[in-house]
Amino acid sequence: RPLKEVLFFPTTVTCIEHLFQPHPRVSPCLCRLPHGLETPFTRLLRHLLSARFTLDLCIFAFSSQELCRAVLLLHRQGVVVRVLTDKDYMAIDGSQIGSLRKAGIAVRHETGDFHMHHKFAVADRRLLITGSLNWTATAVQGNKENVLVTEDAAFVRPFLREFEELWDANDPA
Amino acid sequence: RPLKEVLFFPTTVTCIEHLFQPHPRVSPCLCRLPHGLETPFTRLLRHLLSARFTLDLCIFAFSSQELCRAVLLLHRQGVVVRVLTDKDYMAIDGSQIGSLRKAGIAVRHETGDFHMHHKFAVADRRLLITGSLNWTATAVQGNKENVLVTEDAAFVRPFLREFEELWDANDPA
Ligand SMILES: [Zn+2]
Ligand SMILES: [Zn+2]
Repeated sequence: RPLKEVLFFPTTVTCIEHLFQPHPRVSPCLCRLPHGLETPFTRLLRHLLSARFTLDLCIFAFSSQELCRAVLLLHRQGVVVRVLTDKDYMAIDGSQIGSLRKAGIAVRHETGDFHMHHKFAVADRRLLITGSLNWTATAVQGNKENVLVTEDAAFVRPFLREFEELWDANDPA
Repeated sequence: RPLKEVLFFPTTVTCIEHLFQPHPRVSPCLCRLPHGLETPFTRLLRHLLSARFTLDLCIFAFSSQELCRAVLLLHRQGVVVRVLTDKDYMAIDGSQIGSLRKAGIAVRHETGDFHMHHKFAVADRRLLITGSLNWTATAVQGNKENVLVTEDAAFVRPFLREFEELWDANDPA
């Protein structure tokens, strides 16, 4: 049966260091945050970090440092990352779009008068992550938000098609 | 097999009068809009108007007159409608929340410092409609947006639970 999961936010802030460590640590993490807890946010990070080949992101607002760290790690591991975003929100306080570009990740942005308001990701053309959640700390830690995670092809396929259409439509070349 | 559908916006504006007519008209509609077209918006309205018993709405921004008209029609037909919304966006230009309240529909709003950012509806505790789309004309006619429609209980159940929790948490009594 294909994966189907719903995550609700906000969530409490917990340590996420272990998600970025390829090998278990010898000594425990000394930071002040709670450790060893599974939260909607650790689930979201785990699903993202499960990408092995491709990651297609279509995100209205992207300022979360932790989510940016996950995307940069995937990029360093050789995952082909593409990022589509909204032109007005690229420049918001703490936007991570510049960091992604600097790391060499392909970024395109909508140029029309309206918003590119999607908030979805597709990993390996197989796993869809979509919902109301923008990739910001306020959304994760403050707002009431939802994220659906699914491998059901009836949902994944249309989103892949939408991504390719928007990606081609916003080719700067 | 349970219903699974993905709708993408923006969409062109077409006549929606036929969706609100219980019986086929004798004479054709004379308005200037295109007629007889199925669009993501007519699909969305059809799914909403399929409610027979209950409609639970959890919507950050609700200013679409057409969607309001659909909700008011359901209310008049005896469907028990509950509306949860965000306090900051209740007062936006053209918000329909006042009209819903005036018609006698139960409305509650989040009172915290953060946003109630969901945009979902559940009809008859059976059909989930959720995505990035706020219920505004700009979202429907301008933005790049998505809406998932599904009867898959793996998705519907968690959203029902979330609705009941937020509904109880925002009881003004
Ligand atoms: Zn730690
Ligand atoms: Zn007409």
